[in-house]
Amino acid sequence: MHTVSETRLRSDIEANAEFGSIDVPDGHGRTVLAGTDANRDARDRFVRRLREAGLAVTIDAVGNVVGRWVPDSADPAAAPVAAGSHLDSVPKGGIFDGPLGTYAALEAVRALQESEVELARPIHVVCFTEEEGQRFSNGLLGSSVATGRTSVEETLSLTDDSGTTCRESLERIGYHGTGRVDASEWNAWVELHVEQGTRLEEAGAPAGIVTDIAGITHCYADVFGNADHAGSTPMSERRDALAAASELVLDVESAANRVVDDESATAVGTVGKIEASPNATNVIPGDARLGIDIRDVSRESIETLVSDLEASARRIETDRDVDVTIDRPYMVPPEPMAERCRSAFHAAAENADVPTLSLHSGAAHDTMNVARVTDAGLLFAASKDGLSHNPREWTDWSDCRAATAVLAGAIARLAN
Amino acid sequence: MHTVSETRLRSDIEANAEFGSIDVPDGHGRTVLAGTDANRDARDRFVRRLREAGLAVTIDAVGNVVGRWVPDSADPAAAPVAAGSHLDSVPKGGIFDGPLGTYAALEAVRALQESEVELARPIHVVCFTEEEGQRFSNGLLGSSVATGRTSVEETLSLTDDSGTTCRESLERIGYHGTGRVDASEWNAWVELHVEQGTRLEEAGAPAGIVTDIAGITHCYADVFGNADHAGSTPMSERRDALAAASELVLDVESAANRVVDDESATAVGTVGKIEASPNATNVIPGDARLGIDIRDVSRESIETLVSDLEASARRIETDRDVDVTIDRPYMVPPEPMAERCRSAFHAAAENADVPTLSLHSGAAHDTMNVARVTDAGLLFAASKDGLSHNPREWTDWSDCRAATAVLAGAIARLAN
Repeated sequence: MHTVSETRLRSDIEANAEFGSIDVPDGHGRTVLAGTDANRDARDRFVRRLREAGLAVTIDAVGNVVGRWVPDSADPAAAPVAAGSHLDSVPKGGIFDGPLGTYAALEAVRALQESEVELARPIHVVCFTEEEGQRFSNGLLGSSVATGRTSVEETLSLTDDSGTTCRESLERIGYHGTGRVDASEWNAWVELHVEQGTRLEEAGAPAGIVTDIAGITHCYADVFGNADHAGSTPMSERRDALAAASELVLDVESAANRVVDDESATAVGTVGKIEASPNATNVIPGDARLGIDIRDVSRESIETLVSDLEASARRIETDRDVDVTIDRPYMVPPEPMAERCRSAFHAAAENADVPTLSLHSGAAHDTMNVARVTDAGLLFAASKDGLSHNPREWTDWSDCRAATAVLAGAIARLAN
Repeated sequence: MHTVSETRLRSDIEANAEFGSIDVPDGHGRTVLAGTDANRDARDRFVRRLREAGLAVTIDAVGNVVGRWVPDSADPAAAPVAAGSHLDSVPKGGIFDGPLGTYAALEAVRALQESEVELARPIHVVCFTEEEGQRFSNGLLGSSVATGRTSVEETLSLTDDSGTTCRESLERIGYHGTGRVDASEWNAWVELHVEQGTRLEEAGAPAGIVTDIAGITHCYADVFGNADHAGSTPMSERRDALAAASELVLDVESAANRVVDDESATAVGTVGKIEASPNATNVIPGDARLGIDIRDVSRESIETLVSDLEASARRIETDRDVDVTIDRPYMVPPEPMAERCRSAFHAAAENADVPTLSLHSGAAHDTMNVARVTDAGLLFAASKDGLSHNPREWTDWSDCRAATAVLAGAIARLAN
C-alpha cells in the first residue's frame, strides 16, 4: 500500500505559488505566462524536485518537461504510464489550477517509490507548456504538439502581442529543448485538475471522475444594420445592429436552456464578447459582432445549438431588415474518457476510501488532446465555491491529498 | 423683393468643402474639428467673405465669429437679428451640416443688401465654435458660452484627448479673440440646417419649419453579474451581465415604440454604446455598461422612458440575480421654437412660394441653447435619403436656394 504525503504535496504547491505571486487582499494569486521569468523559476523548481526524486528529466523543443521513473520491477522498454498537468496560469490566476496536477503526479511517484507496489511500466511525470494560452496560443499548446495536432516548427514561430516568438521566449528561459514528447507512445495518461465548478463541493466529494470532456465550438456573428442619428431617426425607420444582436444574445441563452431541459443537461451556450460600432451613446449602432461559445459532451447538442443560432439569425434578418453572417472558425469535438482509466480511478478511490462523483468536464484540458492518441483519464479535486482563474480559487489540502491518493492508485493500476 | 443667389451660395459651400476634405469613393466628405488647420482655413475664408460683403467682423474669446451689418435704414443701437450656424464637422462628415446655415445667413444678408427692403435692426451673421463636440466637448460649445450656460474660462480650459487646451488650439489658429458673444442681446435668432432625416424628402418640401427641438437625456446603466468559466458553469448557475444587458437594450427599444404609439409620436430611445467585461468569448461576462440616449419634444415622455428604464432594471435584477445601477448625468429639456420666428418662416415661405412642412427636430442644434435666452427659430433643408454625418450627406442646390430664400425673408420680417 502506498501513502501520499499531504505535507510534501502542500509544501510543493505553496513553494510554486511564490513564482509570479501577486499582492491581493483576499486569496493567493499568481501570474505565470509561458516563457516568463516566473515560468522559468517554476519550471526550475519542478525539474529540481523531479531530480531529487530520482527521475530522469528531458525537455522537448516546445518546453514540455518529462520526468521518467523506471521502477525496478518495470520493463524499461514498456510503454509508460504518464501523468501531469501544467504550471502556467492565466493573469491573476489561482495557485491550484495546473500545479496541483503537476505536483500530484510527482507526489504519486514518490508515494509509489516508498511503497511495496510492483509496477510493470515506467512512469512519466509531465508538465505541458502553455495550457492556458494567454501568450502565444488559444491554449493546450504543449499537448497539441505532443499529440501531433500542431507541429513543433509552427509552435515555435507563434508570437506574443509584442512580436516575441515562442522559440525566443523558451530559449531565453532555457526551456527550448530537443525532440518532441510523443503522447501516442504512452500506454495511458491521467491528469488531476481542480474542478472549477461546484458539483463536488455540493456532493461533499473530494474527487470527481470525469466521464467526458465537453466539445467546444466558437462562432462569431456579425450583424450589419445602419448607423444613424439617435435623435433624428424615428423608431420605425431604424436598422439597429445592437438591438438585433441583443435578440441573438438572448436566443443563444434560451436555446441552451431548452437543450439542457430536453436533450442534454450538460450543454452550455455563452455570448462572452460583444463589439458595437460606432459605439457612441448618441448614434444608432450600425454594426455589432458577437463571440459565441457553445459546449457539450454531446456533439449532436452542439450542432443543435449551432443550428438554432443560424435559425435565430435568419429570423432576426427578416424581422429587423439587418444582415447577419455567422462564422465558425473553431470546433474541438467532445472526448469521452477511456473506460480503462475511469475504472482505475474508481478502484483506487474505493481502495483509498475516497468518496467520488462521476461528472463531465465543461472546461478544456490537456487531457482532451491526449485522449485522441491514447487511453486518457481526468480526475477532479473539489473547488471551493467553484472559483477558478481567480486568486480566491481554493481546494482544501485534505481534498488535494485525497485526490492525489486516487491518482496514485490509478497510476499503479494502469502501470500494472 | 430680395433674391438669393444659388450660384453664390453654392460657390461658398463648395469652396468651404475643400477644407479638411477627405478622399471617398462616393460623396463629398470632410473632417473639420475645432481648432485644427482645416478649421482655421474655413474660418479665414468665412471672415474674408463677411468682410467682402461689408460686414464688421469680431471674434470672441471662444472663437465665435460675428459679422455685423447695419443697414442704412436701421438704428445701430437696436437689438440685432442674428442668423448662422457652424463650420466644424464630425470626422468624415458631410459638406452641408453647418456650412449651409452659416453661408445661407451671409447670402441672406447679401440678398437683402441688394434689395430695396428696409430693415430697422442690424443683422449679425454668426459662426459658433465646435457645434459637433468632437474635440473638446459634448457639442453646442460656442452657443453654450454665448448663452451663459458655460463660462469662457471653463471652456478655454477644456482639453482634447492629447491634452491640448481649447485656449491653445484657438490661439494657434488665431481665433482666441476677446469678449463674449451675448445671445441674450439679440432681438431674435434663426438658423438654417439640413434635416438629417427623410420627412421633407418624403413630403416633397424643400424646407421645414421646426416646431420644437427634442430634449435629450443620457443614462448609463451598469450591470453587475458574475464573470465565470463559459465551460464549467451550468446554465442554471449563471449571473450573465451581457444577457441581462441585452434584455435592457430590447426593453429600451420596446418602451420607446410603446410611447410612440400611445403617448408621443416623436419619442426615441437608443442604446448606442455597450461595453462588456472581461469581453472574452470563453468567459461569461461579469459586467456590462450601456449608454442610453432618450429624446422627445415632450418632457413627460422623456420621464416616462426613464421610469420604464428604471422599472426594467429592477425586474431584471430580480429575474437574473444581477445588480443594475442607472446614472443620468445629462439632461437638456425640449425647446419649443418662438411663435414669432415660426410665423416669420411661414410668411417668408408663402411669399417665396416655397412649400414647407412643420416638423420637430430630433437632433440638437445651437438654436436649442439660443432659445433659452431670446426668440429663436430653426429651419430645415431637405436631406437626400436622410443621410448625415456621412460623406453621402446631400441637399439639392435648388433646395439650398429655396430654404435660404425663406431664411432671408424671415430675417427681413424679424428685423422690420
